[in-house]
Amino acid sequence: MNKYGLHGKLTATQGNSDKLASILLEAAQLVSTAKGCRLYLVSKDRTQEDAVLVTEVWDSQEDHDQSLHVPGVRELISQAMPLLAGKPEKGQVLEILGGAGI
Amino acid sequence: MNKYGLHGKLTATQGNSDKLASILLEAAQLVSTAKGCRLYLVSKDRTQEDAVLVTEVWDSQEDHDQSLHVPGVRELISQAMPLLAGKPEKGQVLEILGGAGI
Repeated sequence: MNKYGLHGKLTATQGNSDKLASILLEAAQLVSTAKGCRLYLVSKDRTQEDAVLVTEVWDSQEDHDQSLHVPGVRELISQAMPLLAGKPEKGQVLEILGGAGI
Repeated sequence: MNKYGLHGKLTATQGNSDKLASILLEAAQLVSTAKGCRLYLVSKDRTQEDAVLVTEVWDSQEDHDQSLHVPGVRELISQAMPLLAGKPEKGQVLEILGGAGI
């Protein structure tokens, strides 16, 4: 079965993208302990100063969905929400065909 | 120094996305031998049937640029070009702040 990928953008309110990124980096450490987590990258797109990108790969969508129950993740989400400029867009759902690195 | 990431979409002419994907999967095997290649994923977005997505992470942009000289890569690119519906869009350039999995 092909792995489940997500590539999404979270837009922070002006001047808060670094704070948002640091919360997501903390989340990455927690989430990476979850079953089936193969990749959780936090990045910036320098053409979109207030945006933070998250790129994830999981063995399955179910593993991804379960990761929300990892202790501490919901707290981090609640810290991040007030920093967002509007409702988070649904990320691009990717069916990972293969490649190298994970 | 933060790693260099790319997330881009290649659109195939109708019915050729699987052929394009298999060429890119071959490229992934070659490119992953290049210095500084941390990730080279080929994936599909089921909402865009003719599109193939490539997600890459490199130690530096220079390492990425050098990878075009890996034996066999240019041949694969020349195989892929005729399958594309128009000029490939420049991918999203990502500054990888961190995370887990690479």
